Amino acid sequence: MNRTQLVEQIRQKQTYLCVGLDTDITRIPDHLRTHPDAVFEFNKAIIDATLPYCMSYKINTAFYESQGWKGWEAMERTVRYIPDTHLKIADAKRGDIGNTSAQYAKTFFEVLPFDAITVAPYMGEDSIRPFLEYTNKWTIVLGLTSNAGSHDFQQLQVSGSGAGKRLYETVLEKVARWGTPGNLMFVIGATRADELAEIRSIIPDHFLLVPGVGAQGGSLEEVSRYGMNKDCGLLVNASRAIIFAGNGEDFAEAAKKVAKEYHTEMATYLQAL
Amino acid sequence: MNRTQLVEQIRQKQTYLCVGLDTDITRIPDHLRTHPDAVFEFNKAIIDATLPYCMSYKINTAFYESQGWKGWEAMERTVRYIPDTHLKIADAKRGDIGNTSAQYAKTFFEVLPFDAITVAPYMGEDSIRPFLEYTNKWTIVLGLTSNAGSHDFQQLQVSGSGAGKRLYETVLEKVARWGTPGNLMFVIGATRADELAEIRSIIPDHFLLVPGVGAQGGSLEEVSRYGMNKDCGLLVNASRAIIFAGNGEDFAEAAKKVAKEYHTEMATYLQAL
Repeated sequence: MNRTQLVEQIRQKQTYLCVGLDTDITRIPDHLRTHPDAVFEFNKAIIDATLPYCMSYKINTAFYESQGWKGWEAMERTVRYIPDTHLKIADAKRGDIGNTSAQYAKTFFEVLPFDAITVAPYMGEDSIRPFLEYTNKWTIVLGLTSNAGSHDFQQLQVSGSGAGKRLYETVLEKVARWGTPGNLMFVIGATRADELAEIRSIIPDHFLLVPGVGAQGGSLEEVSRYGMNKDCGLLVNASRAIIFAGNGEDFAEAAKKVAKEYHTEMATYLQAL
Repeated sequence: MNRTQLVEQIRQKQTYLCVGLDTDITRIPDHLRTHPDAVFEFNKAIIDATLPYCMSYKINTAFYESQGWKGWEAMERTVRYIPDTHLKIADAKRGDIGNTSAQYAKTFFEVLPFDAITVAPYMGEDSIRPFLEYTNKWTIVLGLTSNAGSHDFQQLQVSGSGAGKRLYETVLEKVARWGTPGNLMFVIGATRADELAEIRSIIPDHFLLVPGVGAQGGSLEEVSRYGMNKDCGLLVNASRAIIFAGNGEDFAEAAKKVAKEYHTEMATYLQAL
């Protein structure tokens, strides 16, 4: 899915919601847990229920890998189940030397039909470049994350590349030069107005994947007000808040209800575009 | 494997070689490539041939994931094949928010019997902590990597935490406080004497996993001279230089020959301890 298609789909669907399939098998409703293909069955029901209300699905690879190769197979079946009208993100946080990153890119862009993958920036340009070489695929680089640990390194002041700049700002600046707003996004866990304004001054055009709305606790209104650009430029993720909204036989209905609420709220912010 | 056992094994085996199983299926010898279980058969032969000459095996997850769930299964069979006398490292470069890192830790330390995993530091303490909570397991955090991209961020000067310090030095300092030399190692791709001396002044006791000897081109002598501590404190990796030393039916013999050369050289450096 290229940028034109992405923006068009957002306008059409009136949503920039990303549903995070962090499918923790211990939190799947009881009636499904003993199913031989529990993870996929759960995901299938969630996808069917939320499809009209979201723009994207984000598969968190950790929750599949922890089920061994069967989990990996469930991930494969899940990503193939998601229709092409929705952006398919592998939340994998990969990144290694060039020849190894090339293998990860092959994994998620060729072996599996993902549109996008999250990548960690610590190892620099040659660790990110192999992902960017794919046409109509997206590399989503960690900028500022939403967890407490983001203060340990991302918020450090960096010298030598402009006064008072923080590491994550240097990451945004530098990485932005390696790709384009057509193949590169950033993970931005910021919800504060001043941070988002600062970030938008560095990368005005890029899409931002925003975690931390819902269980991780950011405000959708703030993010939308300060993070949106003329093409929307946002994918806002909610995982547990949607997929584990209920834990009975009506779990998919409960998920649908929450996704629909996000959709309603997002549609109002999109009106302002 | 705890630190006492690791040091004891190094003394006994007279080697600190780590063999990197970067098993690229396109580089496997022709006669094996059509085998239904080619990756595992290749690894098995390499392990059998190199076992007396190395201390550790490092499985680079990217090369397995790129074969889909079957590759994941081959990784599982490979790690189970390595005997407990050798440290089993998952070179996975994972790292995410706490609940997700906990899933990765479960994957590599419980579902799979790895002793150690490589982890990226960008997301900070709560992304690393879940790995450190396992007893007799090792978390190997990226410090200074050996690729060109290490200059992009790792070598940036950081202010506010001491004058003239580089990001990777701050990473070493800070991360060292979260664990102990008994559960924490660092990836250090340095081969220059001055860098290694500086690194040893920050983390004198930790084991360093050193990539970049062999195909990536560092000098084993330099690394050993400036990186060793009283417990050896080094695991030096070679991947392609060993496993793809030959590409005929005698590939395992060729691998053995190179591993044996490393062993001979390492034994001389260990004499000096």
